[in-house]
Amino acid sequence: MIIIGERINGTRGNIKEAIEKKNKEFIKKEIKKQIECGAHYIDLNAGIGKGKEREKEDIKWLIECLYEVGEIPVCIDSSDPDVIEFGLSFIKTSDKMINSINGESKKIERLLPIIKKYPESKIICLTMDEKGIPSDYKKRLQIAEKLIEILNGIGVKNENIFVDPLVEPISVNYENGIIFLKVLKEIKKLNIKTTCGLSNISFGLPNRKIINKYFLSFCIYEGLDSVIVDPTISDIREAICISEMLTGKDEFCMNYIKNVRNRNF
Amino acid sequence: MIIIGERINGTRGNIKEAIEKKNKEFIKKEIKKQIECGAHYIDLNAGIGKGKEREKEDIKWLIECLYEVGEIPVCIDSSDPDVIEFGLSFIKTSDKMINSINGESKKIERLLPIIKKYPESKIICLTMDEKGIPSDYKKRLQIAEKLIEILNGIGVKNENIFVDPLVEPISVNYENGIIFLKVLKEIKKLNIKTTCGLSNISFGLPNRKIINKYFLSFCIYEGLDSVIVDPTISDIREAICISEMLTGKDEFCMNYIKNVRNRNF
Repeated sequence: MIIIGERINGTRGNIKEAIEKKNKEFIKKEIKKQIECGAHYIDLNAGIGKGKEREKEDIKWLIECLYEVGEIPVCIDSSDPDVIEFGLSFIKTSDKMINSINGESKKIERLLPIIKKYPESKIICLTMDEKGIPSDYKKRLQIAEKLIEILNGIGVKNENIFVDPLVEPISVNYENGIIFLKVLKEIKKLNIKTTCGLSNISFGLPNRKIINKYFLSFCIYEGLDSVIVDPTISDIREAICISEMLTGKDEFCMNYIKNVRNRNF
Repeated sequence: MIIIGERINGTRGNIKEAIEKKNKEFIKKEIKKQIECGAHYIDLNAGIGKGKEREKEDIKWLIECLYEVGEIPVCIDSSDPDVIEFGLSFIKTSDKMINSINGESKKIERLLPIIKKYPESKIICLTMDEKGIPSDYKKRLQIAEKLIEILNGIGVKNENIFVDPLVEPISVNYENGIIFLKVLKEIKKLNIKTTCGLSNISFGLPNRKIINKYFLSFCIYEGLDSVIVDPTISDIREAICISEMLTGKDEFCMNYIKNVRNRNF
């Protein structure tokens, strides 16, 4: 399970403040915490709602902070392709992720030349387009298939394509959990990697962390390859470790026993 | 999810003691606790290792204790068909379970006439025979199919047949979890009900309760109909409630919200 640490996001109050005040130590501490808790990639999102030029400046600064901690793989995260392009130019490692492309024609058109420049990048593909997230799971699959074809066409290998079937709240439609898992299962059949964020599933309900961890365990059961989460939450580490063991991915239960010994959850 | 409360079992120290001392109040308290925590059936196992005649006397006494609490459905549990036959004669409700039959020829021969007398009973069928539990999942399925055919032949309806694919420890073979879930999935395709005990999965590992609850959630995801558990464990109630919600079985998440309000886990 590839863990993408989600904490460095300009929409979160304390991160926004740290970006505004250029509080390097705070950001570096946030990065270190996530790495210590098992993050393989650090998602960097510099969007604090002050426009494109400011976001470009801030993403560069976040990358600088990160490299003061170490040469850690970045998951560069912006809704603006210009910010992604600018940020990518400062990334030193060939191992990196682009978060994200989706089925919108304009987005595809603008992002394809950027992706072409970094053919070894991993690309997160959201199953949505101009009309939003389709409620019909077959339409989500169609968007995924279209994106896979386009990305394959410019030389991106299947192993670098991470489709996100997009989690929606069960408080809105109580079948949203199984709809997501159905799309996930279908995408796995395409021999493509998968990823997702979790927390949307529990939106509007009490005790969200507990719901998120069970949902993560179902995703792992269906073969989810990567997850965008806060790895400092011990429930998340618990769900990953135990679900991998119960699905036969932990030979002799060694990883579980090590985690229990280290009081990791 | 049908919950069979497993606490009244003569192999457990405090239950054995209560049976020996004919401590009715203790047994009644144990029954009440399980009902309050959501048990639909109370498993009664009077086996304290003192022979058949003693077990018969004790199962009768346990049933008497139970009826002092209320007319609660019993899951009568013994490895000795004579004890099952004797116990059944004291059960007042038509809704009851027999725990259990398996693929052993002698057992089938002895239990069939008993089951014939109670055609409305639910029957738990273990996927094992004279040679023990087959490691090959297809052989477990074959035993299940044989038992279903035999039971159908004497008029037992599919809806009353509960196949238990038999959980084995992952500490012995780290693929035992997925082997079980594979058999479960195949049995569900036969349009038959399923049940199981959980705790074997975590045998030999630390923090067993936490493993059991994730495993239960996977079983629910695959459609397990019934489970033999200790419902007084809040982790078990949590796993059932949240897994049912996440698999689309809790309309408008009403049951979850009610459980959170009642601080049920």
